[in-house]
Amino acid sequence: MYDLLRGMRIVEGAAFIAGPSCGLHFSQLGAEVVRFDTIGGGPDAKRWPLADNGASFYWEGLNKGKKSVAIDLSRPQGRELAQRLATAGDGLFVTNYPVDGFLSYDKLASLRPDLINLRVMGWVDGTPAVDYTINAAVGVPLMTGPVDSPSPVNHVLPAWDLLTGAYGAFALLAAERDRRATAKGREIRLALSDIAAATLGNLGQVAEVLAQDGDRKRNGNDLFGAFGRDFVTRDGKRLMIVAITRRQWEKLVEVLELGPAIRQIEANMGVSFAEDEGARFTHRTLLNPLVEAALAEHIADSLAPLFDAAGICWSRYQSLAEAVANDDRLFRGSEIFNEVSHPGGGRYPTPGCAARLPQDDRRAAAPSPRLGAQTDEVLAEWLGMSSGEIGALHDQGFVA
Amino acid sequence: MYDLLRGMRIVEGAAFIAGPSCGLHFSQLGAEVVRFDTIGGGPDAKRWPLADNGASFYWEGLNKGKKSVAIDLSRPQGRELAQRLATAGDGLFVTNYPVDGFLSYDKLASLRPDLINLRVMGWVDGTPAVDYTINAAVGVPLMTGPVDSPSPVNHVLPAWDLLTGAYGAFALLAAERDRRATAKGREIRLALSDIAAATLGNLGQVAEVLAQDGDRKRNGNDLFGAFGRDFVTRDGKRLMIVAITRRQWEKLVEVLELGPAIRQIEANMGVSFAEDEGARFTHRTLLNPLVEAALAEHIADSLAPLFDAAGICWSRYQSLAEAVANDDRLFRGSEIFNEVSHPGGGRYPTPGCAARLPQDDRRAAAPSPRLGAQTDEVLAEWLGMSSGEIGALHDQGFVA
Repeated sequence: MYDLLRGMRIVEGAAFIAGPSCGLHFSQLGAEVVRFDTIGGGPDAKRWPLADNGASFYWEGLNKGKKSVAIDLSRPQGRELAQRLATAGDGLFVTNYPVDGFLSYDKLASLRPDLINLRVMGWVDGTPAVDYTINAAVGVPLMTGPVDSPSPVNHVLPAWDLLTGAYGAFALLAAERDRRATAKGREIRLALSDIAAATLGNLGQVAEVLAQDGDRKRNGNDLFGAFGRDFVTRDGKRLMIVAITRRQWEKLVEVLELGPAIRQIEANMGVSFAEDEGARFTHRTLLNPLVEAALAEHIADSLAPLFDAAGICWSRYQSLAEAVANDDRLFRGSEIFNEVSHPGGGRYPTPGCAARLPQDDRRAAAPSPRLGAQTDEVLAEWLGMSSGEIGALHDQGFVA
Repeated sequence: MYDLLRGMRIVEGAAFIAGPSCGLHFSQLGAEVVRFDTIGGGPDAKRWPLADNGASFYWEGLNKGKKSVAIDLSRPQGRELAQRLATAGDGLFVTNYPVDGFLSYDKLASLRPDLINLRVMGWVDGTPAVDYTINAAVGVPLMTGPVDSPSPVNHVLPAWDLLTGAYGAFALLAAERDRRATAKGREIRLALSDIAAATLGNLGQVAEVLAQDGDRKRNGNDLFGAFGRDFVTRDGKRLMIVAITRRQWEKLVEVLELGPAIRQIEANMGVSFAEDEGARFTHRTLLNPLVEAALAEHIADSLAPLFDAAGICWSRYQSLAEAVANDDRLFRGSEIFNEVSHPGGGRYPTPGCAARLPQDDRRAAAPSPRLGAQTDEVLAEWLGMSSGEIGALHDQGFVA
């Protein structure tokens, strides 16, 4: 938590990962983020993983530091209240509601013309999609997994969702910056399908499949276009080792004492692996066995300090539970994590802002809200309602 | 390309994906982004995929719309010039150079106290890391792939790099916003290791492994915590089908005419799959065979319109080459792509800004620069050098 965006007031009406992670990024840089849900919780209120008592670790993780307002969105009066809230504050609204529903840009802009409305979408034409279906559509599962895999391998990290959330935060802030100069409101439509397509274009992979008139072959665990793969030590530890830069390669060859063998291959093949990173990939069937044999002679714990001293780019493979338990660089020992008690009853290491700002004071990570915890506060302070009006809304069950 | 950030001037001295993708995001919203490289190109100048003539589709893809300055960074005078450039423009500098080198924050802040310096890192302690090694360290490869896989499965999408680039763009813009009010400069350190750790925390997975005292089991291609997997039609087409919301589930059951069979399972197990998305995951060994059998009776082309009409969340699996050739929603038919001729000699569909802004005019995607194409222009306009000074730098080989 930092204070860079202190004073900024944003509203979020969104479920799942992309929209809520966007709001989370704002919250962790100091903005006041109000999230509304239907009474009892939206479609992501019970997403797994769950605590034993049924609390959603997922919901808690994505909504830290936000204020929660609960509104009956099934009734017109509740929807009208949501429209008022979406256009309150600084007129910055993050949603994944449909383009043409009660939270459409046109409806909201008629209430507040300078509204900036980030709308996260699946397919840009409105067809439903989630990270998994977009990933299948752009071909990543057919690039992933063992070379001889008979079927696609889905990724488990919702990368498109996460990228959409972070990019959406950037785009929303860019629009807010422009609005300061122009007073212009606008909608920003950000579809998982567009994010995925643009990303594969940005990585050169669209040009690649067109230039070679077909797909890149599956490479299993090998890094594409340079040297890198998983290798196993004598004591059965598996390491990911990468050599993209010249220095990384030369140091790896030096530490593993592979110089003579490598020079022999270079002479036979007429290449320089130091100068041509791509040659390391082209000839990986010659190079990988050398590194395999070298790793099989070493104990991981004795190799690690040699690798680190030489500046080699590597890591052990560890499971998440192992990393949480043992790797102080990542979780428990990291300054971005602190123990937080969440309203669901859990207390566990919780991340704040992923960036580190040495010139700023870091505040501790915040808990998620209880659903509806700030309903009355927000109705009063953001919408200017009297306690009588708020009481009437409660009496009629429009808010909770 | 949009004009939201028109007039903003940013400098990038960065290689590979995270830093350059951050600069790309700024460029595509209208900022003027100057990238400097050492003469002949930095460590990412020849990253695969390559065109037949050796041009890097990767470099071209990540540096679209930027201006390129080539400086001899091996000599002190060249490094000094890079320091001047890094602190020029609006004092916004994106880099992945080491914390303590010639582009350290302290050195640059002594030249320009209000500099905002986004520094992308591997491990936050300065240890080298790339997307692949961080991924191995946080456990994702051990969650990925078939349930009975004997080894980790690396992801092929550099998700941590991409997320770092997009989040870094957001953080940089937030700092620039704060600077307008406070005049404060600062460094923003953004490590792949912190991004990965924070993300797994945000998704609830750190809480999960602590609560259950161990790792989530591998789930193969099954979506965690709801219904979803790959299924094969009678004509051998593979589809990803997902049902997270109640409506998605009910429509899937309806279209596949599984109502009676599902109700039988619900009665036997004492659950409601409509009300409890998690039950769909818990009992997936009962549900998956029903959907498998139903899919095996249908041709993909006849199922697709039924699925779409019902609002089911699904996609075909297609390879990237298939998607580029046939799926007009993603690449060739998409308004975010247009044909661009790049200086490397290639002409191919190239993405502009991934967001769509219906209230703004979209400009076409821009080509990447030739290395050093704007050296003289930038030295003159950004550093105020005379043609004589620039000529002397050329004569001495400090710039190209």
